[in-house]
Order: sequence, then C-alpha cells, then structure tokens
Amino acid sequence: MFGADVDASVALVWSVPIVRVAAGVEYDGSGFSGWQLQVGVRTIQGCVEKALSAVADEPIRVVAAGRTDAGVHACGQVIHFETTRSRSEYSWVRGATSNLPDEVALLWAKIVDDHFHARFTATERHYRYLILDRRIRPTYLAKRVTWEYRELEVARMQQATQYLIGIHDFSAFRAMSCQAKSPIRDLRRLDVRRRGRLVCIEAAADGFLHHMVRNLAGVLMTIGAGERRVEWAREVLETRDRALGGITAPAAGLYLVGIQYPEEFCIPRPPLECGI
Amino acid sequence: MFGADVDASVALVWSVPIVRVAAGVEYDGSGFSGWQLQVGVRTIQGCVEKALSAVADEPIRVVAAGRTDAGVHACGQVIHFETTRSRSEYSWVRGATSNLPDEVALLWAKIVDDHFHARFTATERHYRYLILDRRIRPTYLAKRVTWEYRELEVARMQQATQYLIGIHDFSAFRAMSCQAKSPIRDLRRLDVRRRGRLVCIEAAADGFLHHMVRNLAGVLMTIGAGERRVEWAREVLETRDRALGGITAPAAGLYLVGIQYPEEFCIPRPPLECGI
Repeated sequence: MFGADVDASVALVWSVPIVRVAAGVEYDGSGFSGWQLQVGVRTIQGCVEKALSAVADEPIRVVAAGRTDAGVHACGQVIHFETTRSRSEYSWVRGATSNLPDEVALLWAKIVDDHFHARFTATERHYRYLILDRRIRPTYLAKRVTWEYRELEVARMQQATQYLIGIHDFSAFRAMSCQAKSPIRDLRRLDVRRRGRLVCIEAAADGFLHHMVRNLAGVLMTIGAGERRVEWAREVLETRDRALGGITAPAAGLYLVGIQYPEEFCIPRPPLECGI
Repeated sequence: MFGADVDASVALVWSVPIVRVAAGVEYDGSGFSGWQLQVGVRTIQGCVEKALSAVADEPIRVVAAGRTDAGVHACGQVIHFETTRSRSEYSWVRGATSNLPDEVALLWAKIVDDHFHARFTATERHYRYLILDRRIRPTYLAKRVTWEYRELEVARMQQATQYLIGIHDFSAFRAMSCQAKSPIRDLRRLDVRRRGRLVCIEAAADGFLHHMVRNLAGVLMTIGAGERRVEWAREVLETRDRALGGITAPAAGLYLVGIQYPEEFCIPRPPLECGI
C-alpha cells in the first residue's frame, strides 16, 4: 500500500496518467475461501491482485462485479483496477494468467472509461446452477456440480419458477449475513432445463442477495424431488422469512456466468456456454 | 490369491454357485496411472478390485472392456468379475462405491450369464474427445479437457473424418507399444461438432488400437488448426506408418463413453451425454 501511495503521489505530481482496466476472470472456486480478500486464507481476489501487481510492478487493488462465496466458480466474473503503468491489453491477460494458479485465469482485459465500475455500473448478473441427480455421487464432476441422489422432476421446478420471477422482496432467500440495504430484487430470468445428465438452473437479476441463487436452487430442488408442492415456492417468498425458506443448496454447482453493462462501455460478453 | 483358490475349491466341493457380475464404472482418470493393475502405482483397476473384495469379503479380480491410459476418464467403462458370494446388485454398487476413492464410482451392477465377457463380447466401443480451443488455458475444466490455444475450424475437421471412417489398416494411428494382433479396425463413427465452448470428437469402432483415438484427435486438431490440408488425414492413413502420423493428442480430453454388447446380455447403456 505504501508503494501505491507513492505511485499515486508521483502520478499527481508528474501527471502520470492513471488508466482504468476491466478484465474477465474465470476460476474453479473449489480450492478457495471465496472471492473476497481475507487475511490468512486463500482467496481468488488475493491471487488476482498478486498476479496483476507482478505484471504492473506496483500494488494493484481490484473491484469485482460479484463477490462469490467459497466453492463457487466463475466463467464470467468481471473486475476493474487502476494503474499508472502502461501495458497492452494482451500483456495484462498473458502476464496475469502466467502468474496465477492453475485454477484461475484472465480471459480478456480492456482499458475502460473512468466511469466504468465493475460492481456499480453492472446492470444484470447471470448465474448458472448445475445439479447431477442420480443415485451415485459424481466422479470427474465432483466439486463442479451439486449432487442430488433423488431424481428431479424438471417440469415441476420450471412451474415453480413462475412464482419467483419478477420484482419481489426476497428476504426469504437472503442469508442472515446479507448486508444489502434492500431485499428487493428484479429476478428477470429463472429457468430450469435438463442438459444431458445435468439439471441446469439459469438465474439473471439486476443483483442477487447473499446466498440468493443457492436458496432459490434449494427451494426448486425440494420441489423437484417431490418433497413439497409447486406452490411452496410462492409460500416461501411470501413469508419473507429465511427461517422458513428451506435448505441452502451447496456452493459446488454454482457458476457466475456473466455480467451485463451498458453498451457504451463495450465490455466483452463471454459465450454463455461455459463448457460445462 | 490364496484366499481365492480356497474359495474356488470350496465352491467346487460344496457346489457353492459362482456368479458372474457385470458393472458400470465411472472415473476421473487424472490422478491414476491408467486402468491396468501395476505394482507400486495407483491404478483404477487396483482401487476397484480392492473395493469389490471388501464387499465380497473374498479377493475379486476384474476384467474391463477398455484398459484406459493414465489421465483418461470414463463414464461408460464396463467390467465383469466372478464371485462365490451372494449380494444384491444394489449392494455391489453401494458397497463398492463407498469403498472407492472420490474419483471412482460404480454406476450399476448386474448378474450376467457366464458367456458374458466385458472385453471379448463387446461389439463396439465409444469414446469422446473434448477440446477447449481458446487462447487462455482452462481453469475448472483443467485435466478434464484438452487445451488447444489455436481456434479449430470444425468444418475442416469434419471433412477430414470422411477419409478415416470405415474398415482400414490403422497402423499409422497405432502406438508403437500396441499389442493388438491386427491393425485392421472398423471405425464406424467419427464426427466433430462444436458444443458450446468445446470441440467434441465422437469415435465409435469395433475396437481401438492403443492410442488410436488420441492419434485420430491429433490429426484432426492439426487439420482444424489449419496446419495441414484436409486430405492429410487420408495421406497419413495410407502411409500405415506411425512415425508420419503427427502428434498424439493429450489424455486429458479423452472419455470412454460406452460399450455395446449383444442385446441378449441386457447390459445397461449409460446415457450418452455424460454431463461434460
């Protein structure tokens, strides 16, 4: 940080231009204590900042669109950072990726307008939740999908989504620890389909509360397994009470797939099909 | 083995029936030195035999349809074994899987006719080869797909398959170490398509020579990357010389997807979509 302060002062005094860079990050979250920097544990933010700092040769702090939890993956995380150093977009990508552990990579980098903010200018977040529903646990998909030993009836899950889509108070789907000011979110898309052996839930909203996708997945899985009626989704929503909202589905099946920004920023959109 | 001999003698003297059991095995091959039992290294066969022996409480030896190499995965491996012990089909599956490491599981088990042989009665083998073709290495798909930094032109690869499909002498696609008596194989299916971010090669034949699928993938990838003309596939085949056959594609992208048997054996067929 001291280095950064000096660099910032130098930048002010000598008018070194500070550029803002946006980048796309992909990761396997299973070996990390989540995105957010914490002392003494391995976090994705920590690894990305270390790698970018090595490329910049100055300390870099990053801001992410979505601070994913431990075990959650991403193919469409977006970050931004500021730097006084001049590097080509390709150098950021190659340099950072070669300094990152095998489970994390930068997919692209782009010099952006100062008004761009990875978190605050995002207009929509898209998550995917993958479930392997069979009697036997996964092998090569372990930690990459959620295992449900009961067969899920996708049609019931899909019916239940109608009660959840829209602008609602999602208090019943919000972790106790959630720090968001408002529990109101606009859930624009929620659909469930079977894709080969996997059940795939797609969720898009202006933003998500803490654990919201996993709590939605938990309710849909309970309904899909036949344990509750389809209408239970509406009942849970209406209680606005997390204690009545059922289980939080495991982190392993969750992927941050993409972030949408106003077109003026020209942020690359990853192919929505992330390969899994 | 001593235990097995005693058990066999007991079976003869007391007419304890010996039953033959077929089973489906799924695994992540990345942490193993291949399927086949070898002293001093971790093999999938070794793990499966240990797990089944624990369930049977007698030593079990298994025969597999395909002896996959180090790093190769399977969702449709088929094995058979003999035992004097009576267990339900479900007990074999649950018991073995709970004794197996996380990367291996039994998907089903079935008592079969004595004429069934996992390897010799198989009429067709089906493999899938997955490639992530992008400039940046994979993260959550590492060791589960092959990474190719060049973009592959699927249409060219698909065109090249026409020269390879059919009954041919596949010497040019056969590892030096291959022990098969004949290099003639009937390659019944070879197709290439893009599936989301992945390029997927499907290959089915009466049988495959050692490294044959990876050598086919190597030639198709070279053509897809524009390094060679489409007709090079035919030229390689016609040389019958492995030394001219180009690179052997890495093991990481290869999956044994399914084995076909005559219908009389009623062997379960796994869903061809393996979830990846």
